[in-house]
Amino acid sequence: MIKDKNKLIARTPEKFRETGIDVESGAEVLSVNYERGTIELKDNKKVPFDILVMATGAKAISPDLPGARKPGIFTLKNLEDAINIKTYLKEKKCRKAIIIGAGFIAMEMSESLQNAGIQTAIFHRGSLPANRWDPELSKLMLEELKTNGVEFVPSAETTAIKEGKDFPLCAVTNQGQWEADLILFAVGVKPNVELAKAMGLKIGQTGAIAVNSRQQTSLDNVYAVGDCCESYHRVSKHPVNIPLGDIANKQGRIAGRNIGGKPLTFPGVVGAQSFRLFNLEAAATGLDEKEAILSNYNPISTLLWGNAIAQQMGLKKIGLKLIADKSSGKLLGAQAVGFAGAVSRINALSVALWAGLNIDEVAYLDLAYSPPYSGAWDIIHNAAQALRRAI
Amino acid sequence: MIKDKNKLIARTPEKFRETGIDVESGAEVLSVNYERGTIELKDNKKVPFDILVMATGAKAISPDLPGARKPGIFTLKNLEDAINIKTYLKEKKCRKAIIIGAGFIAMEMSESLQNAGIQTAIFHRGSLPANRWDPELSKLMLEELKTNGVEFVPSAETTAIKEGKDFPLCAVTNQGQWEADLILFAVGVKPNVELAKAMGLKIGQTGAIAVNSRQQTSLDNVYAVGDCCESYHRVSKHPVNIPLGDIANKQGRIAGRNIGGKPLTFPGVVGAQSFRLFNLEAAATGLDEKEAILSNYNPISTLLWGNAIAQQMGLKKIGLKLIADKSSGKLLGAQAVGFAGAVSRINALSVALWAGLNIDEVAYLDLAYSPPYSGAWDIIHNAAQALRRAI
Repeated sequence: MIKDKNKLIARTPEKFRETGIDVESGAEVLSVNYERGTIELKDNKKVPFDILVMATGAKAISPDLPGARKPGIFTLKNLEDAINIKTYLKEKKCRKAIIIGAGFIAMEMSESLQNAGIQTAIFHRGSLPANRWDPELSKLMLEELKTNGVEFVPSAETTAIKEGKDFPLCAVTNQGQWEADLILFAVGVKPNVELAKAMGLKIGQTGAIAVNSRQQTSLDNVYAVGDCCESYHRVSKHPVNIPLGDIANKQGRIAGRNIGGKPLTFPGVVGAQSFRLFNLEAAATGLDEKEAILSNYNPISTLLWGNAIAQQMGLKKIGLKLIADKSSGKLLGAQAVGFAGAVSRINALSVALWAGLNIDEVAYLDLAYSPPYSGAWDIIHNAAQALRRAI
Repeated sequence: MIKDKNKLIARTPEKFRETGIDVESGAEVLSVNYERGTIELKDNKKVPFDILVMATGAKAISPDLPGARKPGIFTLKNLEDAINIKTYLKEKKCRKAIIIGAGFIAMEMSESLQNAGIQTAIFHRGSLPANRWDPELSKLMLEELKTNGVEFVPSAETTAIKEGKDFPLCAVTNQGQWEADLILFAVGVKPNVELAKAMGLKIGQTGAIAVNSRQQTSLDNVYAVGDCCESYHRVSKHPVNIPLGDIANKQGRIAGRNIGGKPLTFPGVVGAQSFRLFNLEAAATGLDEKEAILSNYNPISTLLWGNAIAQQMGLKKIGLKLIADKSSGKLLGAQAVGFAGAVSRINALSVALWAGLNIDEVAYLDLAYSPPYSGAWDIIHNAAQALRRAI
């Protein structure tokens, strides 16, 4: 049984039906009776199961501020949110938007809104966007926001949202008041685990459902996949909850294989992630220093600026930070921001993390050099050699 | 002592001189007397050495055809060649060029010449450009050549070059006669090993100087680096001679470290390579099927076409071929051609080859997914899963 609360997504259930899978759209599951092997829907209907897959996802965090439920205030997690935002933007002919938060969804949304001709401001508690990246790298993101007309308000705590004078909404912050047509909360998501908790599934330290490498939960015949469950992090060796679509897809496939009798284990993640911000690529993988310490490593890092392409081909500025374990030389993480090639570098380094390479190997990796795509010494090599010297 | 035959490159020797290194520009080494520890220059000058580094590079193959020494006929290996070609193009106001050969230098040159407003034709013995790539992938290169106005003449054997009627040169081939201002031989290079042979250095089966992982040759205190020597191929486990600048740079550094008393070994190559052809990225790594068989593997491959970016971001067609060992599932090689992301994929797969991953791991690699750079399932994952099914 496929559960789909979102009636706007009409095509997906149809596609399932074509394959003979029974789909109940708009069916909200109220509870699971594991002993009896049934789920109870909102309309009191009970549906039996032999195997249950928890794919309840994550939900956007919606701050409990005065006025935070006004029309024009949105979070962004699923397709329904996106459709609601688009409908509102069209109907209200919006000119100004405020994004509260400065993670990668905030960055992506600022580009989308600004490109749609809507003057956008980002309010962030911290001083620089995208906490996961080194402040030096985040500074380039800040420049890119400014270059593209996005206002960035640092150290901003939003305390309430009230009606505006010239615009329908007004965000009240410790930095002053800003009016806008639309306010978007982009302050993160958390795993949707109410049902799982109620039925007694083991919840991990991350707050997500604990699973083994076959996506099995603590109860027999109950699987969990995607944003609601944990993944094994190959570098930290700890379970993590990383709500990203590619991980969810993989876990779904692994669960399906195991349920279908062709067992396969999920080999885990290394924390690879990327986003685009106008002309800038931002990507990161592995652990940052704090996470490395929590995982009992002794991290040391280096951050290098360079050119993503060969000098004679022009300049595509790129910054690359590498983090390694001082004792073993093992690569622990990497962060990159650049006008080209950041994702490419982070993907190569994600494979290096996957395989547990140390920085001496990273310093001499054989990469597909040609001038439009890198120098003869790639910034990966240069950064790894700089890090070795630092050690 | 740094040897530099090319007087046109005046700045590099100057830079060396600034560091106190003695440089003799235009000094051609006639012979090496290893027992006496001296080299003999063309002007009979003898220079003593304690340590000798052979960095004699490769030389372009120049077919021995009737008329092949006429003005306007060039090979392309070093900066001097490039300067000569550029000078000729300017002075003669060239309108038409012929490139004989269809490897990656031929591809790059066709783009450069065509972009400079010179109508370019490629003559190739085979039926498709870039032998290293699967014919299916090479077909996309052929389309890109045509889209950009480059003529591609397959199955063409050039037998002579004579004077033309409307243009200074005329290439006589089994496919007819073509006139042009400029003819470029791009039919490969071979290692420059005359001196090495004369002094008794061991030459490997590839025809290049044999070295160990410290870049030491068969004679004490004689090192070799770059296009004139071999490299250890981590996948085939055989020595190879791959004349690429990034490998040469790495080997130079390794030799320098060992000579300078900070020993370091060259970990070898996986055969990563790339070039740009107008809007197309072409990249390859590892072994193809033939090489795999020669290395005692049992290769099986799959070739998948897809989109380098997420569907909702548009279409950037990409083709990816993966080659694996049927018995062990070990990844052996990969080839990609696409309008985006081919180099990025091949770099990630080069690290996978470096680390010896099998395709089951490749199928679930954690890559930095976001829609501008890939689908949630990257073509790497899809191709690896398709290959697993094929096995």
